[in-house]
Amino acid sequence: MRGYFLSIEGTDGSGKSSVANLLKEEIEKNGFEVILTREPGGSKIGEQIRDILLSKENSELSKKCEALLYASSRAQHVDEVIRPNLLDGKVVISDRYVFSSLAYQGYSRELGIEDVMDINKFAMGDVYPDRILFFDIEPEVSIKRRFNDSVADRIEQEGVLFQNKVYNGYMESIKLYPENVSIIDARLTIDEVFNRCIEIIRGDLDEALSSNNSR
Amino acid sequence: MRGYFLSIEGTDGSGKSSVANLLKEEIEKNGFEVILTREPGGSKIGEQIRDILLSKENSELSKKCEALLYASSRAQHVDEVIRPNLLDGKVVISDRYVFSSLAYQGYSRELGIEDVMDINKFAMGDVYPDRILFFDIEPEVSIKRRFNDSVADRIEQEGVLFQNKVYNGYMESIKLYPENVSIIDARLTIDEVFNRCIEIIRGDLDEALSSNNSR
Repeated sequence: MRGYFLSIEGTDGSGKSSVANLLKEEIEKNGFEVILTREPGGSKIGEQIRDILLSKENSELSKKCEALLYASSRAQHVDEVIRPNLLDGKVVISDRYVFSSLAYQGYSRELGIEDVMDINKFAMGDVYPDRILFFDIEPEVSIKRRFNDSVADRIEQEGVLFQNKVYNGYMESIKLYPENVSIIDARLTIDEVFNRCIEIIRGDLDEALSSNNSR
Repeated sequence: MRGYFLSIEGTDGSGKSSVANLLKEEIEKNGFEVILTREPGGSKIGEQIRDILLSKENSELSKKCEALLYASSRAQHVDEVIRPNLLDGKVVISDRYVFSSLAYQGYSRELGIEDVMDINKFAMGDVYPDRILFFDIEPEVSIKRRFNDSVADRIEQEGVLFQNKVYNGYMESIKLYPENVSIIDARLTIDEVFNRCIEIIRGDLDEALSSNNSR
């Protein structure tokens, strides 16, 4: 695999998507071709799977079916988009990847982090991120940052318990699979978060470049 | 699990569906409630997944995505239809189940029978058939039985190689997972095949009834 594969993970509102765009621009400035993609989705078939997952009429969707649909969508994303671009020597940035399934389906839905990793190992094959950036911010903090206090209070009552569970799911998943994970303090400003990410990526890419050169 | 779960497996044209209908009638006559279902599909969400699998516009569908979509559909089928009916004490007959995935995706698509079994173990959980009837007939024989010679010759040229591979896939899968499998000689007449099946099922149900009574 000649390219470099980066995934960005975190709870909703952790700033993933904004920073992903800035990273794409910066890495391109350094002369790399960058593909920015996201999950769930990332392919035409992935979008069709996403429709099943998000349809309000599918309230009977079982937890295991949900986890396997996310894995199906990931397999298509890997085979159609991520692997070919990596083989082409490009940088691929995915907004969410396997850790989202570990945190949401494995931990929050209580299917088991390791069991969900196993079905995803089948889906991913040899395509594991060279770097996983986890944007670390407690859900109550990110919700307060995005909304005014009265809206934040209402959201907290409704959704913060679930987001907290997802956050804890990320933490447990990182303990089980720490390889290539960097924890980024996402309570900092977007510029500071961006700088920290770039520093890590630059380290990885310099290494990749020098090991390519030495061949 | 109080009910009895039967799956019928075999290549296309092996007579599965006709015999399944006869078995349902016969078992009902003996006082059991019978649910006859089939894969892929068997649930509303399963049908939506089936649409993705069979759409001619999805020619880019990857082999792993396909295998995971079949497993997703199976998980929903198990959680929504098969398990609740078994818990209710009913007889459930499924026209195709996990061995179809082993033969088609595991062997014919070359994903590996054991790897495909692993993702399906996640999908099935505790719902494994009490009896798997494999309808054993070589594809060239079943094709000749269904069509006249000139049509059969054309089909043979086009599809028999693939159907042969699926047939071999069933044989390899049965070697790996022989538990609860009965091989039925499907070259016999439909009445003879039916009688052989009923004999096996009666044995199982008598056993189930006597072990229920002894509690």
